Amino acid sequence: MSSYLHPDRLFSSDSSQRAIARTIYQAIKDLPIVSPHGHTDPSWFANNQNFSNAAELLIVPDHYVFRMLYSQGIGLSTLGVGQGTLNLEQSHQVWKVFADNYYLFRGTPSRMWLDYVFAEVFNISQPLSGATADTYFDTINQQLATDAFKPRALFERFNIETLATTEQPLDKLKHHKTIQQSDWQGRVITTFRPDNLTDPEHPKFRDSFKALASAVDMEISHFQDYLKAIKKRREYFVEHGATATDHSHPTAFTADLSSSQKESLFQKIRSFAFSPEDAELFRGQMMTEMAAMSIEDGLTMQLHHGCFRNHNAPVYHEFGADKGADLPVAIEFVKALQPLLSKYGNHPELNIILFTLDETTYSREIAPLAGHYPAVKAGPSWWFHDSPEGMIRFKEQIIETAGFYNTVGFNDDTRAFLSIPARHDVARRIDSRCLARLVAEHRMSEEEAVDVATDLTYHLVNKAYKFKP
Amino acid sequence: MSSYLHPDRLFSSDSSQRAIARTIYQAIKDLPIVSPHGHTDPSWFANNQNFSNAAELLIVPDHYVFRMLYSQGIGLSTLGVGQGTLNLEQSHQVWKVFADNYYLFRGTPSRMWLDYVFAEVFNISQPLSGATADTYFDTINQQLATDAFKPRALFERFNIETLATTEQPLDKLKHHKTIQQSDWQGRVITTFRPDNLTDPEHPKFRDSFKALASAVDMEISHFQDYLKAIKKRREYFVEHGATATDHSHPTAFTADLSSSQKESLFQKIRSFAFSPEDAELFRGQMMTEMAAMSIEDGLTMQLHHGCFRNHNAPVYHEFGADKGADLPVAIEFVKALQPLLSKYGNHPELNIILFTLDETTYSREIAPLAGHYPAVKAGPSWWFHDSPEGMIRFKEQIIETAGFYNTVGFNDDTRAFLSIPARHDVARRIDSRCLARLVAEHRMSEEEAVDVATDLTYHLVNKAYKFKP
Amino acid sequence: MSSYLHPDRLFSSDSSQRAIARTIYQAIKDLPIVSPHGHTDPSWFANNQNFSNAAELLIVPDHYVFRMLYSQGIGLSTLGVGQGTLNLEQSHQVWKVFADNYYLFRGTPSRMWLDYVFAEVFNISQPLSGATADTYFDTINQQLATDAFKPRALFERFNIETLATTEQPLDKLKHHKTIQQSDWQGRVITTFRPDNLTDPEHPKFRDSFKALASAVDMEISHFQDYLKAIKKRREYFVEHGATATDHSHPTAFTADLSSSQKESLFQKIRSFAFSPEDAELFRGQMMTEMAAMSIEDGLTMQLHHGCFRNHNAPVYHEFGADKGADLPVAIEFVKALQPLLSKYGNHPELNIILFTLDETTYSREIAPLAGHYPAVKAGPSWWFHDSPEGMIRFKEQIIETAGFYNTVGFNDDTRAFLSIPARHDVARRIDSRCLARLVAEHRMSEEEAVDVATDLTYHLVNKAYKFKP
Repeated sequence: MSSYLHPDRLFSSDSSQRAIARTIYQAIKDLPIVSPHGHTDPSWFANNQNFSNAAELLIVPDHYVFRMLYSQGIGLSTLGVGQGTLNLEQSHQVWKVFADNYYLFRGTPSRMWLDYVFAEVFNISQPLSGATADTYFDTINQQLATDAFKPRALFERFNIETLATTEQPLDKLKHHKTIQQSDWQGRVITTFRPDNLTDPEHPKFRDSFKALASAVDMEISHFQDYLKAIKKRREYFVEHGATATDHSHPTAFTADLSSSQKESLFQKIRSFAFSPEDAELFRGQMMTEMAAMSIEDGLTMQLHHGCFRNHNAPVYHEFGADKGADLPVAIEFVKALQPLLSKYGNHPELNIILFTLDETTYSREIAPLAGHYPAVKAGPSWWFHDSPEGMIRFKEQIIETAGFYNTVGFNDDTRAFLSIPARHDVARRIDSRCLARLVAEHRMSEEEAVDVATDLTYHLVNKAYKFKP
Repeated sequence: MSSYLHPDRLFSSDSSQRAIARTIYQAIKDLPIVSPHGHTDPSWFANNQNFSNAAELLIVPDHYVFRMLYSQGIGLSTLGVGQGTLNLEQSHQVWKVFADNYYLFRGTPSRMWLDYVFAEVFNISQPLSGATADTYFDTINQQLATDAFKPRALFERFNIETLATTEQPLDKLKHHKTIQQSDWQGRVITTFRPDNLTDPEHPKFRDSFKALASAVDMEISHFQDYLKAIKKRREYFVEHGATATDHSHPTAFTADLSSSQKESLFQKIRSFAFSPEDAELFRGQMMTEMAAMSIEDGLTMQLHHGCFRNHNAPVYHEFGADKGADLPVAIEFVKALQPLLSKYGNHPELNIILFTLDETTYSREIAPLAGHYPAVKAGPSWWFHDSPEGMIRFKEQIIETAGFYNTVGFNDDTRAFLSIPARHDVARRIDSRCLARLVAEHRMSEEEAVDVATDLTYHLVNKAYKFKP
Repeated sequence: MSSYLHPDRLFSSDSSQRAIARTIYQAIKDLPIVSPHGHTDPSWFANNQNFSNAAELLIVPDHYVFRMLYSQGIGLSTLGVGQGTLNLEQSHQVWKVFADNYYLFRGTPSRMWLDYVFAEVFNISQPLSGATADTYFDTINQQLATDAFKPRALFERFNIETLATTEQPLDKLKHHKTIQQSDWQGRVITTFRPDNLTDPEHPKFRDSFKALASAVDMEISHFQDYLKAIKKRREYFVEHGATATDHSHPTAFTADLSSSQKESLFQKIRSFAFSPEDAELFRGQMMTEMAAMSIEDGLTMQLHHGCFRNHNAPVYHEFGADKGADLPVAIEFVKALQPLLSKYGNHPELNIILFTLDETTYSREIAPLAGHYPAVKAGPSWWFHDSPEGMIRFKEQIIETAGFYNTVGFNDDTRAFLSIPARHDVARRIDSRCLARLVAEHRMSEEEAVDVATDLTYHLVNKAYKFKP
């Protein structure tokens, strides 16, 4: 254990709660990592090449990190964003700016994850600052060049049992194929993310729509053709390990139209001459169709709705998507999901996992829905809320109504591969902390708490995503 | 005290807070129970018959309990719901399923209430599980058959001083009459709940509307007739003990129309040819009329708005209402109540108690409204939020703006008679806990805290509902 | 230290957290007070006259205080509100009613601030109650009559370094001029609050619009004239010390219209024949214009949107504005601010501080906006939420996403001059408490916590409002 990570971090400072938290944590800390949803690059595990350097691995691609520096007036170019491959000197400069401003991350989960990566993954024993920036840069780069830091070696060192990536529905999944055909045993699977076929206002909808026909080698003239083509793509993903789909629309709206309404809507969409209302209706109907397909092929549905993408127009035009300017908006689930749930929500084999960026829906909508419908589960705290306080709020606002067994454990949802063990460690610590409070307040026995913690860390994730342990 | 209920449960584990909580709790734990709002069946107290068995009493009628089992894929029929009277073997089977799955309730208030019922009401000393299911079933059934477990005996054992039930406005109140005319001294009163006359979209509106005229023996051609008829029904309820009305509309909207607007709206409603907008306007106007009548007859108004009823269409069609599929939606009070409050909100004798399923309104709307208008009070945390964490959030988000004296103590709001002492005990413990924190942090003296706890448990309830202690 | 204010008040009762909180508080408790936003009366410091008496100073003008008494049925007239200058006997009566009902404030921040004023400013050693009312009244009045209690003497005793008042844009700022021209060194500056020129539905818009032309001595026929005239008023305010503007609209809506759209909208507004939609569009466009001017003249923008003013019609008609009937409504920032932020949000010199009465926006909107846009900062918890629990929620819901360095320290926002040190003391205690928790849970070092506390108390305020320390 490195000197600057305290073994009791994130546990309550109340001595009776802390002692219980240690016991619970001890029981779960070494369980395998199951990562059912995230955005790592499958080529890493297919090609197993070394990562380049500290800045290009940890700063430039991580919008959690550079958005904070940007918010304080440091230009994205200065941080290497959108500058193509950096040479070592440029990377060193980016690292220096980051280290000088590391105090900005005080109190944030990014700080906690990064400290874990430095201390646990790279075994560095002094905190990062302007003064230690150079040592850090060299130490990290040296280790990254070794065989022990190749992606597959790290995957094994991190004790990852299952890792899901996320791909768009026309992806040929060649990296997953390579991994499947290799002699490496690591389980890296894909997830079906069809927003560019379900959302007519998706920037890539028009191209994807046109490409679908040739991808599945059939003509698409009617709505039933469209559904059949998408089913084929789902089958292809299932062959490459997918056990889940993932959906992200602006709202949670669903619809249940008649056959003729569907056909007439589809013809409008197909002509690309549709109104915003048509687009919303189509998204809503497609969610219901996705649920129908999930009942057939068994794929778990993940709903990540309610994000205003690319809010900052100049940043989007200069630097593109995923630059820290995706922002939460208020969302409504109860009315929106009624058509879908009244049709399919009572199906005991269907899993629909609800995520939210609007924490007001935890106690008001998600917990009551998950606490009634067999098909609905509450996904873990997401994105901005995947933080110690965010996870505590999730527990306090979801569990009393939904129970623990209508939740699905933790998602790291990250593109930062090295942070995966850090994120799972924070989640396990917060689980231990929250359960310890219930035990110390005589709301649950310690034995039950260990049981629940194990379920949250391992069994509930496997069950919700239908992974075979 | 049973072995598995800890005497300090729900108090903070911080030793200084816990000691203070014990002192406060000691001062209030034996105060009489005042239950100003709930849904117990008055026939129990009129007829005083023994309850049948554990499953038929505790599982089949309690949607808090069966919804959780249903959410995990256990069929409602398997749980005895909608199956008519169960024989003992069927009841035993239901009980067994419940016991086997009792772990699903970990972390929920249902678990805490049920444990209290088992330990305190039935004096069982080991926790419920599959292994103890049979013993539980027999032990509970044996006791239920005794005189000591007849409704009136339990009412007295529970130390209930006042218990309000809730009836629709055309109810003849025969059970209340029987109780009034009996020599039993227990105070069981009714509450006037006129949604089927104020909401044109209520499933029973058409029938109730037609039945009202004959119930009050007058012709109803104009809006003033309608109001007069409703007034008569209120008088009838007052004669049977009512001190409050209760209202549940989809939104909190109120209106203040001119006489001619009211009349023309009424004629549309009366013809049953109205639009959704007409229905909303009528509901809004009726709330204002109810406030006017309350100023005359003194009935406290309870507003339980903002619930999406019967969300799950197949469950509603097969099993009917109140099957765990009533779900909260976001609600707005400030704009919605402005017409009513600008008209009547400054009246010092009017009591309007606001309940919410949308906790975001606690600090944003309810507390500021209660902290200004003489007529407005903040009702306790309701339904899904009537839980330890829910009550803590209520205190933390309401009191700083509204003060304790614009709240009205606790409501158990239950149809599960045996859980009443359990629910009041949880409320008293959480009151003690929250006040102990203020004392331990030197924000209030211990003497004041005991004073406030007593007011919350007893005096503020009696005052808000105009009960004579 | 007075006997009834505990030195550890508001710190956690957990002993490890409390010890750390003391250390942090020790480091910041004597730092100068910087008060960048508030509503004190500049004439106090210009004329330096003694205040009259306890009731006229502490009760009658403070809507925080009298609204609570009013909510419990005590008439505003009984509290001296709207009665003109009170004589000593009348003031005494008001004081007596307040003292008799002081228990109503239990658990509120008003109670905490008042106790501080009594104990620390007036050095009274026993709590206020009906029994001590007379002693309090006399003791306070005696002290108020002394030189030591003249406004400038108190300003110095309170260790105020900068105090900003708020004036409407046509104000001649004569009191600020008097202060500037005096030999007194106290820094009392103004703030530019142009709602009566940016909001066509503001009750004073019509008069202000007409008065603007003569105030700046120019003709205003076109939108560009209007902007030029407002710029002149901003220059005048800058000459009198202003470093910030302040804006309060019903919503956060912004717009970015073309020149011709602006001109045509302006002509409608100018004719006073505009629809509610026109008014909203004009407010939205004016916010964008204000941002453009701020980039030129450097004034920090404060947005205090989302309040329903004068909700209680009879109270407004009889007693006027600011009588405790301004109520929060739900607000949306992400969509609303997009036009303005995409235009100016990346400007590193622009400061836009977001305040909210809707706490749901903390984690959902404000923190993500502040954690991305260089121009956006999160203002401290405001009005109803400027309380111990409110500040704790702010910290827990803002910091993990925005970090501490996208916040701007504390605002007292008060018209109650004597409460300024009380309010800053509560803020410093809660900062110490929240940081102590992070330290005790090993999420931050104690050294870093002291650093952050100092930044929150002093440096971040000066930076956000461009004050020279």
